[in-house]
Amino acid sequence: MANVRVGMVGYKFMGKAHSNAYRALPMFFPDAASKPVMKVICGRDPVQLEQARTQFGWEQSVTDWRELVTRDDVDLIDINAPSDAHKEIALAAAANGKHIFCEKPLALSLKDSREMLEAAENAGVTHMVGFNYRFAPAVQLAKKLISEGRIGKIYHFRGVFLQDWIIDPNFPLVWRLQKEIAGSGSHGDLGAHVIDMARYLVGEFDEVIGMSETFVKQRPIASAMTGLSAKGEAGGELGDVSVDDATVFMARFEGGAMGSIEATRFAAGHRCTNAFEINGSKGSIKFDFERVNELQVYFTEDAEDVQGFRRVLATDPAHAYMDAWWPAGHTIGYEHTFTHEVLELMNALSEGRQPVPNFVDGVKCQEVLEAVDLSIAERRWVKLNEM
Amino acid sequence: MANVRVGMVGYKFMGKAHSNAYRALPMFFPDAASKPVMKVICGRDPVQLEQARTQFGWEQSVTDWRELVTRDDVDLIDINAPSDAHKEIALAAAANGKHIFCEKPLALSLKDSREMLEAAENAGVTHMVGFNYRFAPAVQLAKKLISEGRIGKIYHFRGVFLQDWIIDPNFPLVWRLQKEIAGSGSHGDLGAHVIDMARYLVGEFDEVIGMSETFVKQRPIASAMTGLSAKGEAGGELGDVSVDDATVFMARFEGGAMGSIEATRFAAGHRCTNAFEINGSKGSIKFDFERVNELQVYFTEDAEDVQGFRRVLATDPAHAYMDAWWPAGHTIGYEHTFTHEVLELMNALSEGRQPVPNFVDGVKCQEVLEAVDLSIAERRWVKLNEM
Amino acid sequence: MANVRVGMVGYKFMGKAHSNAYRALPMFFPDAASKPVMKVICGRDPVQLEQARTQFGWEQSVTDWRELVTRDDVDLIDINAPSDAHKEIALAAAANGKHIFCEKPLALSLKDSREMLEAAENAGVTHMVGFNYRFAPAVQLAKKLISEGRIGKIYHFRGVFLQDWIIDPNFPLVWRLQKEIAGSGSHGDLGAHVIDMARYLVGEFDEVIGMSETFVKQRPIASAMTGLSAKGEAGGELGDVSVDDATVFMARFEGGAMGSIEATRFAAGHRCTNAFEINGSKGSIKFDFERVNELQVYFTEDAEDVQGFRRVLATDPAHAYMDAWWPAGHTIGYEHTFTHEVLELMNALSEGRQPVPNFVDGVKCQEVLEAVDLSIAERRWVKLNEM
Amino acid sequence: MANVRVGMVGYKFMGKAHSNAYRALPMFFPDAASKPVMKVICGRDPVQLEQARTQFGWEQSVTDWRELVTRDDVDLIDINAPSDAHKEIALAAAANGKHIFCEKPLALSLKDSREMLEAAENAGVTHMVGFNYRFAPAVQLAKKLISEGRIGKIYHFRGVFLQDWIIDPNFPLVWRLQKEIAGSGSHGDLGAHVIDMARYLVGEFDEVIGMSETFVKQRPIASAMTGLSAKGEAGGELGDVSVDDATVFMARFEGGAMGSIEATRFAAGHRCTNAFEINGSKGSIKFDFERVNELQVYFTEDAEDVQGFRRVLATDPAHAYMDAWWPAGHTIGYEHTFTHEVLELMNALSEGRQPVPNFVDGVKCQEVLEAVDLSIAERRWVKLNEM
Repeated sequence: MANVRVGMVGYKFMGKAHSNAYRALPMFFPDAASKPVMKVICGRDPVQLEQARTQFGWEQSVTDWRELVTRDDVDLIDINAPSDAHKEIALAAAANGKHIFCEKPLALSLKDSREMLEAAENAGVTHMVGFNYRFAPAVQLAKKLISEGRIGKIYHFRGVFLQDWIIDPNFPLVWRLQKEIAGSGSHGDLGAHVIDMARYLVGEFDEVIGMSETFVKQRPIASAMTGLSAKGEAGGELGDVSVDDATVFMARFEGGAMGSIEATRFAAGHRCTNAFEINGSKGSIKFDFERVNELQVYFTEDAEDVQGFRRVLATDPAHAYMDAWWPAGHTIGYEHTFTHEVLELMNALSEGRQPVPNFVDGVKCQEVLEAVDLSIAERRWVKLNEM
Repeated sequence: MANVRVGMVGYKFMGKAHSNAYRALPMFFPDAASKPVMKVICGRDPVQLEQARTQFGWEQSVTDWRELVTRDDVDLIDINAPSDAHKEIALAAAANGKHIFCEKPLALSLKDSREMLEAAENAGVTHMVGFNYRFAPAVQLAKKLISEGRIGKIYHFRGVFLQDWIIDPNFPLVWRLQKEIAGSGSHGDLGAHVIDMARYLVGEFDEVIGMSETFVKQRPIASAMTGLSAKGEAGGELGDVSVDDATVFMARFEGGAMGSIEATRFAAGHRCTNAFEINGSKGSIKFDFERVNELQVYFTEDAEDVQGFRRVLATDPAHAYMDAWWPAGHTIGYEHTFTHEVLELMNALSEGRQPVPNFVDGVKCQEVLEAVDLSIAERRWVKLNEM
Repeated sequence: MANVRVGMVGYKFMGKAHSNAYRALPMFFPDAASKPVMKVICGRDPVQLEQARTQFGWEQSVTDWRELVTRDDVDLIDINAPSDAHKEIALAAAANGKHIFCEKPLALSLKDSREMLEAAENAGVTHMVGFNYRFAPAVQLAKKLISEGRIGKIYHFRGVFLQDWIIDPNFPLVWRLQKEIAGSGSHGDLGAHVIDMARYLVGEFDEVIGMSETFVKQRPIASAMTGLSAKGEAGGELGDVSVDDATVFMARFEGGAMGSIEATRFAAGHRCTNAFEINGSKGSIKFDFERVNELQVYFTEDAEDVQGFRRVLATDPAHAYMDAWWPAGHTIGYEHTFTHEVLELMNALSEGRQPVPNFVDGVKCQEVLEAVDLSIAERRWVKLNEM
Repeated sequence: MANVRVGMVGYKFMGKAHSNAYRALPMFFPDAASKPVMKVICGRDPVQLEQARTQFGWEQSVTDWRELVTRDDVDLIDINAPSDAHKEIALAAAANGKHIFCEKPLALSLKDSREMLEAAENAGVTHMVGFNYRFAPAVQLAKKLISEGRIGKIYHFRGVFLQDWIIDPNFPLVWRLQKEIAGSGSHGDLGAHVIDMARYLVGEFDEVIGMSETFVKQRPIASAMTGLSAKGEAGGELGDVSVDDATVFMARFEGGAMGSIEATRFAAGHRCTNAFEINGSKGSIKFDFERVNELQVYFTEDAEDVQGFRRVLATDPAHAYMDAWWPAGHTIGYEHTFTHEVLELMNALSEGRQPVPNFVDGVKCQEVLEAVDLSIAERRWVKLNEM
C-alpha cells in the first residue's frame, strides 16, 4: 500500500471535512489501496493556520500555496480554499505534476474549469472534484437500483437544495454572497450538487432554462467571515449582494427525462434539504440529505395490495461502505461522505485510473450552471451543446 | 333487498356517526344485502331530540326507549346512549325480539355484558358491537396479511390509544370521567378498542397484568356535558374523578405473542393516536389511526438491499371497501369505518348469520378489561380463564 | 333558509362527489344559509342514469341537458360532465337564468371560459368553479396563516400534483387522454388544481414558461371508459394519446415569489400527491393531499432550540369546518372538501354574493394554463398580460 | 491540558467505537480539559490484536489484561471486553489506582456491579459507564427541555429498543445469546439503554413488573463469533439459547410517572429502534435513534391553530456539541455519541469530579434489570428498595 502525501490549501469548513476523512480512512478502510499522509496544510493567516494544523493533525504548514505545490514531499494537492483561488492553484499543481483533489465548484467559470481539466490532462495527473453527496450509501443504493434497471426508464428528476441560513436580512455579506469570490450564490453552491446528482443518476442534460432572484439585495458588511456561521448585526454599513439567493430551472435530459431543479437559501425550516426524487417506469426513488441514511424506494411490481414507498435504512451490510462502519441500524452522518470520497481517490491513485467524479464531471457541471445562467440572461432555452 | 327499520337510542357523538353511516350506506354500497331505514330516534331531551331528528334525517322520534323497543315498525335497536344504559335497553330489545347494534363498551361490567349476550342468544336475535376501527381498510389489510401468513408467526403486539383532551386540569368532570355512568375511564373507552384490535389480529388473551393512574383527581363540575368538547372553567366547584386517566398493561396471548397495551388521555400532542405494531417471523405491520388510510408493512423476504417498511396507502381497488368510494389516492376518514360496520350488519341480517364483531366479542373484550382491573386491584397476573 | 333546487349534469366520479356533498350538507352544516334539493340528475345513458339517480338519491332524471336547463323547478345547474360539454351547458344555463356550479377546468380553452364568465355575468347568475382542494381544513389553515402575516413575505411556491394511474403503457385510451374531450392532460386536469392553489395562497401569476411530454404516445383503445379505473388490455388496437402525460413550468408571481409547478401522471408510487410548499420570510408551510388532515408549519420566530416543522393535525375546533364533523383527531377525507365547497355555494346564494372560487377564478386559472401552453409552443417566457 | 494515557481491553464493536472517539476528540473538541493518549490495546488473540492496534492507532498492545492494569504508563482502563470479564478487570484496575471507563452492562449481576462501584470508590478513582445514547444532541435537548420545566410534570415514559438481527432461527448461537457470558439477552443488552434513558430523563424507578420470552430456544453453534454480524448456517449442531429474546416491563417512577419498556431482538424491520416518548403536563417529546439527529417536541402552550409535534433537527448551534462539528443541517451519526461521552470523561478527569453516567448509574441500572428479573421469576411487582 502506497502512501500519498497530501498538501491541503484551506482550513475552514471543507478543510476540516477533508482532514477528518484523511484521519478516518485508515481506521475504517484499512484495505484502501493507498494511504493518505497529512503532510502540509496551507493557509494565509499564520495563527489560525497553526491552530488548524495541530487540531486537524497535519505535520507541517505553509502560508504560501505557491511553495506548497513545488514541494517534493507532497504528491497530492487538496484545494478547498474559496472558489476564486481554485484555478490558479490547480494550474500550478498540475504544472508541478501533482495530483489534484479540488472542491466544487471547480472554478468561477466554465472557461476556467476547462482550463483546469486541460492542464490536469496534459500533465497526466490524477484529478478529482468534491461532489461528496454521491458517496452517501443511500445515494449509492439509488445508483445501483437505476443501473440494474430496477427503476426502469426514467421519466422525472425533481431535485432541490434548500437552506435558510441567510433568510435573516441582517445576516452579513460573507464571501459566499460576493460574486467575485464565490462566482455564484445558491446556484453554484447548492445547485451544483443537485446537477451533479442528476448527471450521476439520470445522465447528461440536453437543454435548460432557468430563473433566479436575489431577495435581499443589500446586507451588513461582515466584520469576520467564517463559513456559514457568521452572525449579522443590524445597523452597520451595507454592501451589495452580488449573487443569487435562489435559482430554479427546468431541464430536459438526453435520455428523455424531464427535470426540475431548485437551489435556494431562503427556504425557512430547511437547514440542508438536499433532496431528489426520480420516477421511472418500474419504480421511484426519494432521498433527503437531512435523513442521509434513508432511501425511499417504490416498485410498480410489488404485490398490488402492498404497494408503497419503502423506507430503506441504508445501513445494512448490503449497502455500500456500511460493512466498514457499524452494525446495521447504527447510522452515519455528513462527514462520512468525504471518507468514502477519499477512499475512491486513494483507490484510483493506486489503480492508475481517474477517480469518479473527476474534473470532467466538474466541467460538465459547470456547463449546466453556465447554460442556466445564459438562459436566465437571454430568457430562452439553452442547449448544452451551445456551451 | 330487505329494509331494516332502525330505532336508535342516543343522538350525540355516536348517534351522529351511526346516522351518517345509515345515510351513506345505500349511496356507496348499493349492493348491500339489506337497507337501513332511519325510522325512529330516541333521546330524553325533546328539544335536542327534535333537532337531531331533522338534522340526521330520522322519520320519527320518541323520548322513552321503553316505547321504542316495543314498536312493531322497528326491526333493529341501535344503542349508543351512555354506557350505563346499554344493558337495560339491550335486554328489553332482546325480549321484544329486536336485533341489536350496541356501541362499545357493551356494559359497565363483565357480568352485565354476559347477561346481554345470553339474552340476545336466547331471543335468537342478531347482535353486533361497535368496534368500528376494525373496519378501516388499512386494518382490513393488516388482517388479510396476517390471515394469509404473510407476517408469519406473531411475536409482539404493541398497542396504544393516546389522547390528550383532558390534560388541562380545568377540563370539567364530564360523564366520561364518572365511573357510575362510564364504567371506566381511558381503559374502557380507549383500551377497549386496542383490546379488540389485538383479539382481531393476534387472537385471544391468555393472561394480563396492569397498572393505572388518575393524574388529576378532582375537576370542576361541568355545567353542560357534551361529548368530548366541553370547556372547563377554573374556579368552580370541584368533584372527584372516579375513573382512570391512564391504564397500561402487559399480556400474553394464547398463541405465544407478548403484548403491551396502553390507554391514556394524558399524552400531550396526541388527539387520537389509536396505533399498533405487530412483529412476526416474516414481517411487521404498523398502523396509526391519525393516518387512517395508511399501513406500514415490512417483509423479511424482500431483497436484502431494499428492505424497509412500506407506507401503503390503503385506497387502491385492492383494498377492502375502496372500490365503493373514490379513485386510488383519494382518502377517506373516521366516519367511513361506521359505514363499513353497518354494511357488515346489513349483510349479516340478510344472510341470517351473526355479524362480526358481535356480543361475543363484546364480552371477550370485557373479560380482558376486567381481568386487567382485577390484576391492578390484586397486583398480580390474572389468567383470562379466571374470569 | 331557502331551498336551492339542483339539476346536475354528469353522474360519474364528480357526479358522485357532488351528490354526496348535497346529501351531507344538511346533516353536518344545518346552519347553512340555503339547503340543496337534489331535484334532477341528467345523463345520456338511461340505464346508468337511473341507477345513479336511485343510488345517489335524486328525485328525477332527464337524458337531455337542454331540457334540464329550462325547467322551472331547477335553480342551479351543476355541470360535471366531461370538459368538452361545459361551455355549451353553462351558456344555456345562464341564458335561462340558472345559477351555475361548474367543475374545473371551466372549458377547453381560455376563450371559451371567458365566454362562460361573460354569459354568467350578463345573466346576473351566481357562478362557482370546482376547485375543491381549497376547502380542505389544512389548506384553509395555510390561507389563514398567510393572510395573518404569520408566514411573512412569500419567496417560494413549489407545487406538484403527482399521479401514476396511466404509467402502465397498456392502460387504455380513456377520454381523459383525448384532447378533443379533455382539452388537456395532466396540465389541465392536475396542474389546474396546483395553479388555483398557488393563486389562492400566493396571488396572481406574472409570467410563466413550461415544458411538457407525452411519454406513451399510443395506447389500446378503451372498450369502456369509466373514470380513472379502466383496466388496459395488451394486444388490442392502438390510438394516439393527444394530451400531455406531464407538464412542468416555472413562474414568477406578481408579488415577487418564484414558482415551480409540475403535474404528471407518470410518478410511480404517487396515487394523488397534490402537494405544495411555501417559503416565506417568517416561516414555511407544507401540504400533501395524501395526508389531507395535516399541515406542516415552520416559524422562524420559534425558540432557537426547538425550531422545526410542526405537523399540525387540522382537526381541532380551531380549524375551519371541523366543529361540524367529529372530535379532534378524528380525520376526514377527500369527499369532505366538496361538502365545504357546497357550503360556500349555498351561503353565497343566500347572501346574494358570488362564491369563491367562481368563474373569475376559473378564467384566471385557464389564463395560466394557456400561457404555459403558449410558452411551450414558442419556447419562451409568456407574460400573463399577453393572454 | 493533561494527557490521559488509556489502556483498552477489547477490540471488537465497542473497541472500535471507543478508539474512534479517542481519535476524534482532539480534532473536534480541542478545548477538552484532558487529552486521551491511545497507549495500549489489550486482547487475547495476538493476530487480531495486532491488526486492531495498527488499524485503530494504538501505540502498543498486550494480551494479558493483568499486565495492562499494572503498567505505570497507563492512567485509565477502558473495559469493553465481553460482559463476563468486566468485574475482574475493573477490580484489578481499581486496586492499581487506575481510572475506569467500563461499557454497559457494568457486570453480570447487581452484586458484582456493586462490588465494582465499591472498589472504585474505595480506590478513589474516576469511574464511568458507557451509556452512550445520553450523548446524542437530540437526547441532550430532551434533557434540557425537561430540566427547564418546558415539558412540565411527567406522566408517561414509553421506551422501546427494537432490533431484528436474530429473527432468523438459523442465526448462530453467538456469545450475546449465552447467559454465562452475556449475563442477559435483550433485557441487559438493549433494555439497559432504555432504563438508563428513563433514569436520565424521568428519574428513579419505584417498582417494576416484567415478562420475557425466548422465542427460538435452540440455534446452530457458531463457528466464529463476531459481534452482531455472524451468519447462521442451517443444519449444524444446535445449542440452547440461555437468554431472553424479548423482555417487556411496566414501571412506576418515584415522581409518579407510569412507564412501559420493551427490549426485543425479534421486531422485524427494526435494525436499531432505540426510541422513547415522554408525555408531560406541558408537552411531549419523542426520539428514535434511527433518526438520531431529530427530536419531536410538542408544547401545549402553542397557539391553538398550530399545535403539533415539531421535528427539530438537533444540528443547530443551539444544540449540545453541534458547534464542534458541522454547519446546521449537516447530520452526525452513531459514533459521535461516544466522542461526546469521552469528552465528558476527559473533562471530569481534569476537573476532579466523577463523570456522568458513572458506576452509580451502572449499579442503579442493574438494580432495575434485576428487579425486573425477580418480578418475572416471582410473577409479582418488585419494589426497587427490595434490591
